[in-house]
Amino acid sequence: MQHEIKSFIACDADFDEARAVIFGAPFDSTTSFRPGTRFGPAAIRNESFGIETYSPYQDKDLTDIKVFDSGDLELRFGSPVSALDDIQAHTKEILDAGKLPVMLGGEHLVTLGAFRAVTEKYGTDVHIIQFDAHTDLREDYLGEPLSHACVIRRCHDIVGDGHIWQFGIRSGERYEFEFAREHGHIYPTGLEGVRFDAVDDCVKALAGKKVYLTIDLDVLDPSVFPGTGTPEAGGATFNQLLSAIMKIGSLDIVGMDINELSPHYDHSGASTAMACKILRELLLAVLG
Amino acid sequence: MQHEIKSFIACDADFDEARAVIFGAPFDSTTSFRPGTRFGPAAIRNESFGIETYSPYQDKDLTDIKVFDSGDLELRFGSPVSALDDIQAHTKEILDAGKLPVMLGGEHLVTLGAFRAVTEKYGTDVHIIQFDAHTDLREDYLGEPLSHACVIRRCHDIVGDGHIWQFGIRSGERYEFEFAREHGHIYPTGLEGVRFDAVDDCVKALAGKKVYLTIDLDVLDPSVFPGTGTPEAGGATFNQLLSAIMKIGSLDIVGMDINELSPHYDHSGASTAMACKILRELLLAVLG
Amino acid sequence: MQHEIKSFIACDADFDEARAVIFGAPFDSTTSFRPGTRFGPAAIRNESFGIETYSPYQDKDLTDIKVFDSGDLELRFGSPVSALDDIQAHTKEILDAGKLPVMLGGEHLVTLGAFRAVTEKYGTDVHIIQFDAHTDLREDYLGEPLSHACVIRRCHDIVGDGHIWQFGIRSGERYEFEFAREHGHIYPTGLEGVRFDAVDDCVKALAGKKVYLTIDLDVLDPSVFPGTGTPEAGGATFNQLLSAIMKIGSLDIVGMDINELSPHYDHSGASTAMACKILRELLLAVLG
Amino acid sequence: MQHEIKSFIACDADFDEARAVIFGAPFDSTTSFRPGTRFGPAAIRNESFGIETYSPYQDKDLTDIKVFDSGDLELRFGSPVSALDDIQAHTKEILDAGKLPVMLGGEHLVTLGAFRAVTEKYGTDVHIIQFDAHTDLREDYLGEPLSHACVIRRCHDIVGDGHIWQFGIRSGERYEFEFAREHGHIYPTGLEGVRFDAVDDCVKALAGKKVYLTIDLDVLDPSVFPGTGTPEAGGATFNQLLSAIMKIGSLDIVGMDINELSPHYDHSGASTAMACKILRELLLAVLG
Amino acid sequence: MQHEIKSFIACDADFDEARAVIFGAPFDSTTSFRPGTRFGPAAIRNESFGIETYSPYQDKDLTDIKVFDSGDLELRFGSPVSALDDIQAHTKEILDAGKLPVMLGGEHLVTLGAFRAVTEKYGTDVHIIQFDAHTDLREDYLGEPLSHACVIRRCHDIVGDGHIWQFGIRSGERYEFEFAREHGHIYPTGLEGVRFDAVDDCVKALAGKKVYLTIDLDVLDPSVFPGTGTPEAGGATFNQLLSAIMKIGSLDIVGMDINELSPHYDHSGASTAMACKILRELLLAVLG
Amino acid sequence: MQHEIKSFIACDADFDEARAVIFGAPFDSTTSFRPGTRFGPAAIRNESFGIETYSPYQDKDLTDIKVFDSGDLELRFGSPVSALDDIQAHTKEILDAGKLPVMLGGEHLVTLGAFRAVTEKYGTDVHIIQFDAHTDLREDYLGEPLSHACVIRRCHDIVGDGHIWQFGIRSGERYEFEFAREHGHIYPTGLEGVRFDAVDDCVKALAGKKVYLTIDLDVLDPSVFPGTGTPEAGGATFNQLLSAIMKIGSLDIVGMDINELSPHYDHSGASTAMACKILRELLLAVLG
Repeated sequence: MQHEIKSFIACDADFDEARAVIFGAPFDSTTSFRPGTRFGPAAIRNESFGIETYSPYQDKDLTDIKVFDSGDLELRFGSPVSALDDIQAHTKEILDAGKLPVMLGGEHLVTLGAFRAVTEKYGTDVHIIQFDAHTDLREDYLGEPLSHACVIRRCHDIVGDGHIWQFGIRSGERYEFEFAREHGHIYPTGLEGVRFDAVDDCVKALAGKKVYLTIDLDVLDPSVFPGTGTPEAGGATFNQLLSAIMKIGSLDIVGMDINELSPHYDHSGASTAMACKILRELLLAVLG
Repeated sequence: MQHEIKSFIACDADFDEARAVIFGAPFDSTTSFRPGTRFGPAAIRNESFGIETYSPYQDKDLTDIKVFDSGDLELRFGSPVSALDDIQAHTKEILDAGKLPVMLGGEHLVTLGAFRAVTEKYGTDVHIIQFDAHTDLREDYLGEPLSHACVIRRCHDIVGDGHIWQFGIRSGERYEFEFAREHGHIYPTGLEGVRFDAVDDCVKALAGKKVYLTIDLDVLDPSVFPGTGTPEAGGATFNQLLSAIMKIGSLDIVGMDINELSPHYDHSGASTAMACKILRELLLAVLG
Repeated sequence: MQHEIKSFIACDADFDEARAVIFGAPFDSTTSFRPGTRFGPAAIRNESFGIETYSPYQDKDLTDIKVFDSGDLELRFGSPVSALDDIQAHTKEILDAGKLPVMLGGEHLVTLGAFRAVTEKYGTDVHIIQFDAHTDLREDYLGEPLSHACVIRRCHDIVGDGHIWQFGIRSGERYEFEFAREHGHIYPTGLEGVRFDAVDDCVKALAGKKVYLTIDLDVLDPSVFPGTGTPEAGGATFNQLLSAIMKIGSLDIVGMDINELSPHYDHSGASTAMACKILRELLLAVLG
Repeated sequence: MQHEIKSFIACDADFDEARAVIFGAPFDSTTSFRPGTRFGPAAIRNESFGIETYSPYQDKDLTDIKVFDSGDLELRFGSPVSALDDIQAHTKEILDAGKLPVMLGGEHLVTLGAFRAVTEKYGTDVHIIQFDAHTDLREDYLGEPLSHACVIRRCHDIVGDGHIWQFGIRSGERYEFEFAREHGHIYPTGLEGVRFDAVDDCVKALAGKKVYLTIDLDVLDPSVFPGTGTPEAGGATFNQLLSAIMKIGSLDIVGMDINELSPHYDHSGASTAMACKILRELLLAVLG
Repeated sequence: MQHEIKSFIACDADFDEARAVIFGAPFDSTTSFRPGTRFGPAAIRNESFGIETYSPYQDKDLTDIKVFDSGDLELRFGSPVSALDDIQAHTKEILDAGKLPVMLGGEHLVTLGAFRAVTEKYGTDVHIIQFDAHTDLREDYLGEPLSHACVIRRCHDIVGDGHIWQFGIRSGERYEFEFAREHGHIYPTGLEGVRFDAVDDCVKALAGKKVYLTIDLDVLDPSVFPGTGTPEAGGATFNQLLSAIMKIGSLDIVGMDINELSPHYDHSGASTAMACKILRELLLAVLG
Repeated sequence: MQHEIKSFIACDADFDEARAVIFGAPFDSTTSFRPGTRFGPAAIRNESFGIETYSPYQDKDLTDIKVFDSGDLELRFGSPVSALDDIQAHTKEILDAGKLPVMLGGEHLVTLGAFRAVTEKYGTDVHIIQFDAHTDLREDYLGEPLSHACVIRRCHDIVGDGHIWQFGIRSGERYEFEFAREHGHIYPTGLEGVRFDAVDDCVKALAGKKVYLTIDLDVLDPSVFPGTGTPEAGGATFNQLLSAIMKIGSLDIVGMDINELSPHYDHSGASTAMACKILRELLLAVLG
């Protein structure tokens, strides 16, 4: 008899043969409104057997690619500094083995840990494509610079102007929007709703560049993704996000994450099922 | 004093005068993910008093048509064979009385029982129009041929090639999609979302034919219908499904069902209210 | 040390300097299906700290306008007559101080109390713009004329023909729709979904007129607003309602309300967050 | 084919042969905290098929007694006066046919309607045995004398001193407790918890008297009955209430009710299952 | 990097060194009321990290014993015959390796599969100690002999009279109680509540005998265990069950199971936490 | 018009006249299992209007004592150090004004902040009476010394041996129980359940001493208090805790807190109602 392995559906390859490594970063200590994203990665794995491995959208199948799932990191609640250190170290280990890190949050702050490892390896000319409802560009939050509300600002501290590409944004303070316009590329959501047309321009501009992709799942409309800490009306549909992902899949992705699933806030399970489907499509778009 | 009757709103006609007969098939033993559809029919009846009998879309009223509601069948849990037999027998009784059977699932497998009775009466040149997120075309599921995941395949066993018309499909194994393309008519969901344009062609092609209509409510997007066992992102809106139903209402419908409402998974009650409204529009489109 | 004040986010101005006054009308005694809207106003205040004060849609900020929040009225459950009297008196007090009343329901019946005060002050040539899923034009409901299902009919009793403008309506009895067409302006929802194009015509027609704006939040689709007593499929998106609000903000609004949030029916909190965001946009559109 | 009958389990006797008549009084308009008891009677009927008809406690079976279930009254929300009138009329009809009225609330106010009919028939020397967490002895509530918080005070208005027997009480204003001690019999809950010992004395004292039994289910501890509007810690266990019911069953009961189940507040369904079991035991104790 | 192992807390021993083997039997197809126990075993594993490995009651620690967790069986929904065969085969494999099988249900029917394997190995002089709210002694349920409601009757078919010891029973048909008294040992629950005093006698009587222990968790009161398909008032407290388990732990246990956790029906998670704690105490009592 | 004040029921005294000051410490960043206690203080205030101000247990009324509620502190999520500093400073301010601090958590770690201020003022001969399911005596948790699981250990760091009195404990690591027995007074929960008899000895021993009282509400059984992060079976009843509180009320209490209500995990609201009632009784026992 064998121990049963805990992995995302069909991501049970041997480490050596795997091209990508999934891991969970169950951290939510800086969440400012409703915590619970620590349960996100486990929920995604547990519920993933409810979806198929085959994508009719891409005509690709997870059983045809090799992915290893290393499970969840054990992070120190209440200590963003040590949590980010642990995430960075784990990401570095994956990168050093020549594999693609695929992180499951947790709150959005965890992106900083993985991004540090990526820029440590590839230098600071890495671009970030961010799907999100919120700018996450605060200088600090109630005095705390290591907060989910500041994570992209901290990434900007590393890579500087022109490297941040933001889609789906529809919430933030006025000065954050100003910062975004001055120092990065922002395509905010307007009266007509989320528009991802500019993804085409972005993909063209980033051809040949290293790209880190971070998807805060609250970029989706609360109707299709209520299970998150800060539901923000007026978001993207599944099909909009799927199309964008398929385009971005052609770029040179050196790291990626999806985050901010807080499964206990959606008893219907539809949010977790959505996260599973997005992860399947993401893996297939980048690796398939 | 009278006993209170348990019926869908305004469907309390005498049996003899009724043109259609509603009945519940509360069976969910083969459900592969989350069970609970056994509570669907009762929920639809109980909550139906929360909607109006009048449809402003069709300018028709349930109080103007005659429908009898025979309540729920008592089916043997854990025994698909006997459950399907009981459904078939009840459907036959309705058909023999010259009335239209309108079944409320239950999991999708129940369609097979009703469809057998329909083909028993009308022969095997009956067409199935299926609205669904899933192909349901597996040869078997974990070795079991009588599973909700195989129900349309079992119907195909009876009527053969060219008789299955599938709309809204966005999940299945690769071989199921291949089977659908080779042996039936499938209009799968793509990046642009669910498209029901081809319903027009279907309606034209089936003029004068006998048609069985089966609506797995998970064809709807989980945002408007989270209360189901396997929520599948990227589905239809209410208005899309309504338009399709109104077109199909002109065909020679010889049996129909709606299924896969699992009310306990949506505490808001919106899923049950949706099922009630779909049933109202369906009855009015076909009988009104 | 100070007592903490209970107010909608950033609406903590002094009464004297305030241009508008928010108050809650937590009444739901005539609700015919699922009660619970009495908890709406408190939920909106409590959860409002989860949204930003800045609107990227309008590029305006709540911190730049002066609003006073007088908290919730204490209304007598089971007594529509006295509840409406209390609402009317409170609204009158606000109007007499030269400020704009902004009421948070409660069930839709509460609109009648505020509207009476408005017409008491401004006369009966006040127009009502109503966003709603339901006509609310019944003569009575089970014999009761003071019911949420009759509230607009009662307003019509005051202002007469041509003063009611209804958007998003998709439910009612046949005679209510006929009444609406004969005595007011109705733009019902059809197969293509909610359409608010006619808001432009309405805004043009009402230039220079006194306008009372009432938003029954069930005008929104249940997917984005499940937390309400009578979820009605086929409703508006957030962006549709937002656009309409921004247009109407240019009119001479003399009173307004949002109502029918029943927070306990949406455990995800997305419905309450939606109500908060709508209220923010409404305040900014009218006062910003 | 037959219409399916809506009744509590095994309570489908013909009216003429029945010794008791169950009916629902789905009214909750004066509820001061959380409404929803209007859904109580329907929930009890729907879920009653989840319990057995046989009681091992009493070694009696519901199939051995004759009970008729007349369904739910259609009461006017927002109008306590007319609701009570309708309840009184229906109870009178049952009494006039020589049968025992068994009412399912609804909020506790509904007891007044049934009690009026009982005293109309039997005169004012009828005693009330009340199980409840709350005294319900207010003179008025926010000025309203017809409130759930005043219902026993209104009954006292009819029958006067010495006719009210209160068990399980643990909440109220100071003056209500004083009133209870002066004008009736109260056995309040103390530090040692609910004690029903005095039920023996009560039963002895009331031998040969007409008795109306009203059970506000919030007399039970919230741990075993969370599904109610005002959960009040420190209540009775099931076994305590069961023992009391079995003793009281020997008295000359001329009317009875159970009330205050608010099923939507307990998603586990345990509260509704409890109400079903209490009703079964009550029917068996009085009629078996 | 290693794959993460899915196991109950601290039950990650190597197979060879393990004295006991845990496995899940996620089957619920014959459930007659509310299904969902298929999610029980996974919930127990996932949530087990929320409890400590140390028991202050027994002063023992899970880290001091060797247990292997083989994960969940993949059972065929809708097919009790093949599900029981698979359970029997897996149990046999564990027994053949000289280890103790510890099964996590699933509905109670799964006990039959494990019990068959146990009697296959040890002969038919094996005694069953059953903790349960229900007799489970029906001859058949709606004609189906392989139902959760018949499971102990099926076990009796194998071992005959005098081998069934039932504690906590408080629901069933009259004839089931009669059968229990005639053919086994039953200690039903009375007005004074659940009493497990007779466990002492039972333990004395079974000294030296082979014993199979089956705990239907609905033996617990719904207040402490609402997350089950058929909550039955008047059950055991945690401390009562714990005491009984510690006594029984001294017997020669040759197989055991806990079953009927339906986690989705208790959003608080307390039911799952209870199941985890019972399993910890059970393992420590028998193996520690 | 006045702004509405946010306070616990009847705790709206002027600061100067108040004898005690309530404040919220909505912090949960170190929670190791399920976060959400940050919503505890607000829930307690919001729902407190659902209980009476009068206690029949103590025959005292909140309206007869003077308490000020200063609202919630704004604490920095993810930063235990600064959160504790802010709590300490606020507590100091209350103590300096000669009033009793009454803190509402938040996770249990917050106790450390208040306790520091108390010992700063009164020296280190202050005793702690702790009601809790967990020892909270870890040296560190995953390397973090400022964790909810270590809070009493940190208090012991300040006051040393013999000053910690622990009741209701039933979970912890083995070494924590050993530490408790060696360095403090522990009355753990055994097979007979929680026993608070020793409270009498404790009260006798502490006569004339300064006492800080901390109540982790998970000392209560999950049946009566499921709304907490780590529900632990086998806890206290309401009446047990109430009796203990009334005895302790006679001591020289110099600070107190209740903590660990996580309201989102109990949709019935019973846990929040329990917390409100405990707070009422606590205030009356100490100040009444």
